[in-house]
Amino acid sequence: VTAAVAQPEGVEDHAELPRGFRAGAAKAGIKASGNADLSVIVVDGSEPASVAATFTTNRVAAAPVQVSRRHLEVSSGSESYGSARAFICTSGCANAATGDAGVKDQEALAEALAAAVGCAPEETLAMSTGLIGTRLPVDRIVPQIADLVSSGLSNPPGGLIDVARAMCTTDSRPKWATARVELPDGSTALTVSGVAKGVGMIHPRMATMLSFVLTDARVAPELLAEILRPVVAASWNQISVDGDTSTNDTVFLVASGAGSDAPIERGTPEAEALLLGVAAVARSLARQQASDGEGATTLITCTVTGAIDDFEARAVARSIVSSSLLKAAVHGRDPNWGRVLSAAGNAHLPDAAVLELGGMDSAIAGARAGTPVEIDVPRMRVSICGTLVFAGQPVDFDPTAVRGQMDAAEISIEVDLGAGDGAGEAFGCDLTEAYVVENSAYST
Amino acid sequence: VTAAVAQPEGVEDHAELPRGFRAGAAKAGIKASGNADLSVIVVDGSEPASVAATFTTNRVAAAPVQVSRRHLEVSSGSESYGSARAFICTSGCANAATGDAGVKDQEALAEALAAAVGCAPEETLAMSTGLIGTRLPVDRIVPQIADLVSSGLSNPPGGLIDVARAMCTTDSRPKWATARVELPDGSTALTVSGVAKGVGMIHPRMATMLSFVLTDARVAPELLAEILRPVVAASWNQISVDGDTSTNDTVFLVASGAGSDAPIERGTPEAEALLLGVAAVARSLARQQASDGEGATTLITCTVTGAIDDFEARAVARSIVSSSLLKAAVHGRDPNWGRVLSAAGNAHLPDAAVLELGGMDSAIAGARAGTPVEIDVPRMRVSICGTLVFAGQPVDFDPTAVRGQMDAAEISIEVDLGAGDGAGEAFGCDLTEAYVVENSAYST
Repeated sequence: VTAAVAQPEGVEDHAELPRGFRAGAAKAGIKASGNADLSVIVVDGSEPASVAATFTTNRVAAAPVQVSRRHLEVSSGSESYGSARAFICTSGCANAATGDAGVKDQEALAEALAAAVGCAPEETLAMSTGLIGTRLPVDRIVPQIADLVSSGLSNPPGGLIDVARAMCTTDSRPKWATARVELPDGSTALTVSGVAKGVGMIHPRMATMLSFVLTDARVAPELLAEILRPVVAASWNQISVDGDTSTNDTVFLVASGAGSDAPIERGTPEAEALLLGVAAVARSLARQQASDGEGATTLITCTVTGAIDDFEARAVARSIVSSSLLKAAVHGRDPNWGRVLSAAGNAHLPDAAVLELGGMDSAIAGARAGTPVEIDVPRMRVSICGTLVFAGQPVDFDPTAVRGQMDAAEISIEVDLGAGDGAGEAFGCDLTEAYVVENSAYST
Repeated sequence: VTAAVAQPEGVEDHAELPRGFRAGAAKAGIKASGNADLSVIVVDGSEPASVAATFTTNRVAAAPVQVSRRHLEVSSGSESYGSARAFICTSGCANAATGDAGVKDQEALAEALAAAVGCAPEETLAMSTGLIGTRLPVDRIVPQIADLVSSGLSNPPGGLIDVARAMCTTDSRPKWATARVELPDGSTALTVSGVAKGVGMIHPRMATMLSFVLTDARVAPELLAEILRPVVAASWNQISVDGDTSTNDTVFLVASGAGSDAPIERGTPEAEALLLGVAAVARSLARQQASDGEGATTLITCTVTGAIDDFEARAVARSIVSSSLLKAAVHGRDPNWGRVLSAAGNAHLPDAAVLELGGMDSAIAGARAGTPVEIDVPRMRVSICGTLVFAGQPVDFDPTAVRGQMDAAEISIEVDLGAGDGAGEAFGCDLTEAYVVENSAYST
């Protein structure tokens, strides 16, 4: 299995468990296909790992999201970071909109995992994906958890690959990325390795679809959360497959500390180096999710420059890759720049929580949330696959040549707003007949 | 040609020119098909008509939108109401993103129309629809305007039907609705008759796709604007075909005054009766647009009750009919209530301009714009085609029976949030392979 689009520079195309973790997957009978659907990651050693988390902002949050928030709060007083000793991911059943019974199911899995690992249930975290409204087959999963922890986590390098595969639902291929972090102080080399799944109901707002990002860095939970927030704002919050934000979106960034004795401190070159590693892995995973969008054949990368600030640039880029009409035009290899302009003209800043995640001051975020991005059309420049097609007014270009350039696994749309220094990017995919077919016959 | 869905009670299924107007259409060579593509409506008599208007909030506003806003401002000092003597609609070319040259083209059409009618260019208003980024064939259109005004407006009852047909682009059928307004004071019976076109790039925000709504009522422009605003908020701003807000959305509500000598005054039962007539026509046209969405086979009507207020109810209803996944599920006749819940959980209030259009105080609108709608899942109830499928938790129901009920031209989704007295509705359509095919091969 290979990714459809090349990995960005500095990111390795595999999943490799960093020091301090064991991981593995098993078949628990959740997926109708009978494929592996249960993943467990366990923290080695006597100390729990530091964890930073982001979750969906969908008001219909799934049971694993509710339970994980509560467990983090027990460990730290915050829902967005804390510590944990074990993680579980179930695939094939979202355990969303299942009421109190669904929460009890999720707690039963936490208890089983805690018993197998030898920790408190509150030291476990969970994520889940699949059909909304169905119950987890708890009786089938619980024995598999015990077996997996006792004997199924024996192959550390391959364990994370197994997790990447078991997380998948409608994904056509697993998603992974690994970065090496050379600490500026020369003390050690760290690993950041992430896995993720997509690929429908993808329009993350504040959080994302499922992803684990693991590192052997030693870093406190609060600093880990400070690293995760801008990374999510620039990566997963900038992808869209179908405009629907899932009930289950979850990212866990987990640091085992096994790579060094001295913790990484806030404001140091080492913290910056770790952030860059996490960002590279997150960006790669987000691109893999967008390129593997349900029914998709083409990754759309939109880069916006010349915005008033980065927030407006990101909003415009995201609006463009989210446009159904632009997505259909890309599918038809149609350099329809009118749809790029129209989508740019519809861009609005996201809600306050998303703006704050990206680093905006909360008072300003409240005032700017949901406001339209002003566009000065005469200053706009648009290029498709490197060919200038609009510069304040229509530009003569050879559509046949651009169609030829668009016949690729990844196409680029570059927009310069001509208003300032803000820049941002977003990733999407084409809209195809296969998306409709896949989603017309999914559930019951 | 018949509408796919029945007209609501109290609305007649035809277009009929109210007293005080002449109208007609001609072939000006804008559409590649050679079909009629130029429409003109002229106000009879010595007095101009009162006009209320709403336009797209897309920041890339088309030239006809820019020119019409300026002309209204000349007549009244406001962009949202004024007076006018003639209207032009061109179809097949949006005249959007065409720069200064496109504005000059539009002004040339205004001058030609004014010369033919015998008024000032600023007493004309325009709307346009079609491909973004192409120029109007002004040289071909100008002589047709003169011919049409001098000899083509001779058949008043049929004239508005011709306009309804000539406006269409990817529409499969023209859209019209007529209501009779019996004034409570018994003085006269008025007519409100509207025409509209769709059916792609339909996700109106503040305004709508193209529509003319004509009446023979005598009413001042300011009051007409007060009538139009809540009507648009409840009708056109509640439909979605593909999530893309057009660059050209325009509604003109035009009152000739030919039906009575005494003007309708603010706060009277007569003003209320007129509002109800306009609202009935607007709701019918919006439903026709949604049901004829590109590639669509099914109208989705979503009714939300039990919200904190009507604004939140409308936001939830619109979020549900806008969900790609729910739209695909309806296409597959899949009673996938999980996608209803997920879409409800993603609802956000619109931006401040849209909230103010719906009647919210501007200071409150600024604070609430873009905020998420809080959803208390245990209180939620969802019905599909009248069958309860969720009541705080999954409900046992016969999916085969519901699939059978969904095999209809219109399907209903009812959501009760259990939180208050707010209610609202929204209209959408299913997402089909045909939508993708149509939009993969549209332009160049």
